[in-house]
Amino acid sequence: MSTDLMPNRYRPGEVPISEREAALIARRDAVLGASYRLQYRKPVHFVRGEGMWLYDPDGKPYLDFYNNVPSLGHCNAEVNAAMAAQAACLSANTRYLEPRLVDYAERLIDTFPAELDRVVFTCTGSESNDLALRIARLTTGNEGVIVSAYAYHGTTASVAAVSPNLGAAVNLSPSVRTVNLPGPSGVSEDEAADFFEAEVRAAIHDLRRRGIGVAAFLFDSIFSSDGVWVDPPGFLKGAVAAVRDAGGLVIADEVQPGFGRTGAHFWGFERHGCVPDLVTLGKPMGNGFPIGAVVGRCGPVERFGVTARYSNTFAGNTVGIATADAVLTILQRDNILANVSAVSKDLRTGLEEIAGRTCGILGIRNAGLFFGIDIGLEESAPAECRAMALNLVNAMRNNGVLISTTGANEDVLKVRPPLVCQAEHVELFLRSFEDALLTTTGSYHAAGD
Amino acid sequence: MSTDLMPNRYRPGEVPISEREAALIARRDAVLGASYRLQYRKPVHFVRGEGMWLYDPDGKPYLDFYNNVPSLGHCNAEVNAAMAAQAACLSANTRYLEPRLVDYAERLIDTFPAELDRVVFTCTGSESNDLALRIARLTTGNEGVIVSAYAYHGTTASVAAVSPNLGAAVNLSPSVRTVNLPGPSGVSEDEAADFFEAEVRAAIHDLRRRGIGVAAFLFDSIFSSDGVWVDPPGFLKGAVAAVRDAGGLVIADEVQPGFGRTGAHFWGFERHGCVPDLVTLGKPMGNGFPIGAVVGRCGPVERFGVTARYSNTFAGNTVGIATADAVLTILQRDNILANVSAVSKDLRTGLEEIAGRTCGILGIRNAGLFFGIDIGLEESAPAECRAMALNLVNAMRNNGVLISTTGANEDVLKVRPPLVCQAEHVELFLRSFEDALLTTTGSYHAAGD
Repeated sequence: MSTDLMPNRYRPGEVPISEREAALIARRDAVLGASYRLQYRKPVHFVRGEGMWLYDPDGKPYLDFYNNVPSLGHCNAEVNAAMAAQAACLSANTRYLEPRLVDYAERLIDTFPAELDRVVFTCTGSESNDLALRIARLTTGNEGVIVSAYAYHGTTASVAAVSPNLGAAVNLSPSVRTVNLPGPSGVSEDEAADFFEAEVRAAIHDLRRRGIGVAAFLFDSIFSSDGVWVDPPGFLKGAVAAVRDAGGLVIADEVQPGFGRTGAHFWGFERHGCVPDLVTLGKPMGNGFPIGAVVGRCGPVERFGVTARYSNTFAGNTVGIATADAVLTILQRDNILANVSAVSKDLRTGLEEIAGRTCGILGIRNAGLFFGIDIGLEESAPAECRAMALNLVNAMRNNGVLISTTGANEDVLKVRPPLVCQAEHVELFLRSFEDALLTTTGSYHAAGD
Repeated sequence: MSTDLMPNRYRPGEVPISEREAALIARRDAVLGASYRLQYRKPVHFVRGEGMWLYDPDGKPYLDFYNNVPSLGHCNAEVNAAMAAQAACLSANTRYLEPRLVDYAERLIDTFPAELDRVVFTCTGSESNDLALRIARLTTGNEGVIVSAYAYHGTTASVAAVSPNLGAAVNLSPSVRTVNLPGPSGVSEDEAADFFEAEVRAAIHDLRRRGIGVAAFLFDSIFSSDGVWVDPPGFLKGAVAAVRDAGGLVIADEVQPGFGRTGAHFWGFERHGCVPDLVTLGKPMGNGFPIGAVVGRCGPVERFGVTARYSNTFAGNTVGIATADAVLTILQRDNILANVSAVSKDLRTGLEEIAGRTCGILGIRNAGLFFGIDIGLEESAPAECRAMALNLVNAMRNNGVLISTTGANEDVLKVRPPLVCQAEHVELFLRSFEDALLTTTGSYHAAGD
């Protein structure tokens, strides 16, 4: 496992930077402090964004295949116009009657299976997961939480304590148990569901032996921080049943897979044919405006609302709602999911072709426009794979394409372009990727390979 | 203590409402659920905001003496223009070089005493307090937290567990201790500092007897949810020293008092002549845009940043920063603090005059434009005082002026107009207040009283 808090980052002295950049970094370090890490060995600085592109101060364009917040493209004019129009008219909280709040809540709920019919708004994905755990613990009276081995669910104290991805310096809760995923454990797709159910049942047993009941199984349905493990669809079913048998709630963290990222469905959990008790939303919900939500079954959401007081000043405010409403309108009106499905097929095919003729790609996984690409050679040690992936990401950055790494060993390329990505962007990406792959990690297969 | 989760709220059937409102409430209840409580016996519905005013669908104006998020007035055109201009240009995260992020961070830090020289951005006040507690616990290696008896610090699991204000249904952490404030305990101003220091030392002792070290003393420097207890300035000093003696950090929750609300100072803690280790910001920072921050001493902030990974997707994003930067510019350029000081004196004088000629006001406390007004008659039982305060708030709402209640018994009027409040608004408020007071809780003193 990588012990670096953020492998793909700037380290002073590693690569030459301009005086202007050095001066800005010095000022930044003097006021923002150590938690603010700059991405890439040579940091990037953007002054303008438009659609799939970001531009640096010299006008150099960068193709964005990484940012999953501006799903509808950078600086989407229609979304921004909705935000500005509402801000000019009224910015008010949810304690006042507000038809737009109710309209949007209804429209959002309509994208979910019928069992999920209540929504509570938040401002961030972290707040969503934090609230979902509060609801689960109050509803079940239990404390135990089950997450994947390298899960990341956010930054509040409560969700950081169920995020092993944050590393050894952030203590896990005594009532959290981690479960191994079938994919990284080398389990075949045929045996994946049974393996995962057994993992979850063992975690439940281990908690119970310590007198800890199960409050929730919390999972990102594309397991992005574990390295993007998506197949086979349905491998979660037995695990979900086991958690329900134990009296726990099932919480799908849709902060990353949600709002159409997977293409075939609006929500990632649908790919697995299960209906969670609670679903948490964030990142792309406002195309950059801070808004999130917990959507859930009436039972636990109502019980929490009746019992505990919960009021979130900014959440559900009219400006955030108007912005999120514009995002949802565009997603549906422009049939963005069909675009995701089509473009992701192109991207997958292109990557497979490159994998066929080069060395350096050990695996390709995706659901819609969220790709994980394993980097390394068959004989590479983990540290070598990690170095190769990091070199590749930085070579692409230097050539004007943005991606990064993920996974326990940080040797998985994390590729997740805005959902408005078109075939022309895929072509540019594939060309840059093959170039970087050849110069940093691989070579063409010898004839006859 | 009031056991109602929110006394000043709509309850079906209590007052007549229109069919249109009833239909909207039914739709709202079917999708938003029970945590969404509507303020006032007869809910309000606004369609437009401007400066100190909100307007309902019939065009009726409401004078806003309650909302402390839009400090610079509803729909401030200059703030909105800054937000829209940045959104049209670039919305990016803090992992890229961004001069505007550094510029604003420096400008913000400049409003603090020199010892406080680092900032970490968040999206909400809850996230700020949650992060401050994470920093304090990591820095000290301790778990214990000391808060005031009726404190409220936010909605995440961690800060809800140190918020006794949330009521019996939300469990406090086993490592939190509450301390009584001198004011509501009937202690004279002369003895306030000693009393409060003794309270805090007793809490420290009680924690230690259970093997729990002190991580932090967390306080809102105007103790708003305790009922607005502001005097005498400096009464926190001995308590602060006691916490430092015990190895704990001092955290000022400036989500409500910060950004000039108290008039004499930019930050509420300055009124008490102490310099905290960490300060948490939220509500008015973006005049409605979701943005918050933790400002702190280099030691704990750096130690946390080096040790733990902390990355907050939306926090510090360029649009939030541009919006907050416009707010700070206006606060400083237009000398808003001087306005707060002047207008709050008018308001205080007017309230004292009303108290002199009427019955029903048992106390007036304020720091700048945050007022707490005790309602009741000398002989009233707590439930009677609470009912009087609630009647008064709702009478004013019906006459087009917005305030609400606070305090353990919810018999304290909470009055906190936007900081752009002018003398003309104070006059309107005082007239409405005296009318409502006479018709609901009091009468003129008999001649010769």
